Amino acid sequence: MKINYPNPSIKTTKTNSIRTYGMLFENVLNETNEYYKNKDIAYIYKKPTPIQVVKVDYPARNKAKITEAYYRTPSTTDYNGIYKGKYIDYEAKETTETSFSFTHIFPHQIDHLINVKRHGAISFVIIYFKKYNEVIIIDIDDFYKLYDDGVNHDGRKSIQFEKAKEIGRIVPKGYTPLLDYLKTVDEMYF
Amino acid sequence: MKINYPNPSIKTTKTNSIRTYGMLFENVLNETNEYYKNKDIAYIYKKPTPIQVVKVDYPARNKAKITEAYYRTPSTTDYNGIYKGKYIDYEAKETTETSFSFTHIFPHQIDHLINVKRHGAISFVIIYFKKYNEVIIIDIDDFYKLYDDGVNHDGRKSIQFEKAKEIGRIVPKGYTPLLDYLKTVDEMYF
Repeated sequence: MKINYPNPSIKTTKTNSIRTYGMLFENVLNETNEYYKNKDIAYIYKKPTPIQVVKVDYPARNKAKITEAYYRTPSTTDYNGIYKGKYIDYEAKETTETSFSFTHIFPHQIDHLINVKRHGAISFVIIYFKKYNEVIIIDIDDFYKLYDDGVNHDGRKSIQFEKAKEIGRIVPKGYTPLLDYLKTVDEMYF
Repeated sequence: MKINYPNPSIKTTKTNSIRTYGMLFENVLNETNEYYKNKDIAYIYKKPTPIQVVKVDYPARNKAKITEAYYRTPSTTDYNGIYKGKYIDYEAKETTETSFSFTHIFPHQIDHLINVKRHGAISFVIIYFKKYNEVIIIDIDDFYKLYDDGVNHDGRKSIQFEKAKEIGRIVPKGYTPLLDYLKTVDEMYF
């Protein structure tokens, strides 16, 4: 089963929006993680985007200017760190649609999340459903059940918002920090 | 106390060599971590180098070419991940000298290592002394004692190889993996 876009021309726009809003959701997470760090609650960082550098110029001493480079596929996930003595690892995603499509996450990222969970990590996917203005955390094992059914069998290729609420947990909105997702992590894992 | 270079012209060379050999030591660590991952022993990754992208061209559809970018200072350390259910975090360094100078590590990286250790992490600095062909792991607390003495007080601004051996632990050389440093981690932390 596949959700069709109401208008084919929206497809391009959609990609752009996800990228743009993705940055905003990312900023919310980054600010929240900064808050946690300053309060000595948790040390969680976004990994830099991997970039393949091809050419570097040195217009001045000690000043390297990269003049040719390309984005690479990330080996792992967006965020990891330590919380309450445990390794925490998650991938942050955003969708403007009524469902989150599995095409927006790499299979090796899912493998990574499953592997670290098996080794004792707190491991999940956190999705911002822009249309509903809700952020939902789904533990990787629960996420994988649907993913496997959709990708490796004949199931749905996406997670609908309603389904996400059912298998995951909504992160309540806040002010300080902006998105107190570790409170939700406490409920889910501690 | 400061180690003087035998010849001033070596200074530039030294910087270059550290960078070059740094890459090689990095490769040894990366291959070892790949081995650990394939054997399902640990999931430890090098974080990508953070790069500030200024200009991107799109010479073809879906092909982004970065044409202006700059290296940024890393927020944290080189490597982190999970081992035996614990969060592991370390900074990898290399020196061609008889001692490791504290100027080669950022103060905020040391803060980070101390913070994560306090929260339950395995946290250390791993240094390759090229001259002696030895790799030494120094727990962050032991490293910090000397660092603090050198940088914040009037002590030595570097760790000599002999001192490193005394406060740290040598990683035995091997073949598969190339540098079985988790065996040393076992002895130090488990």
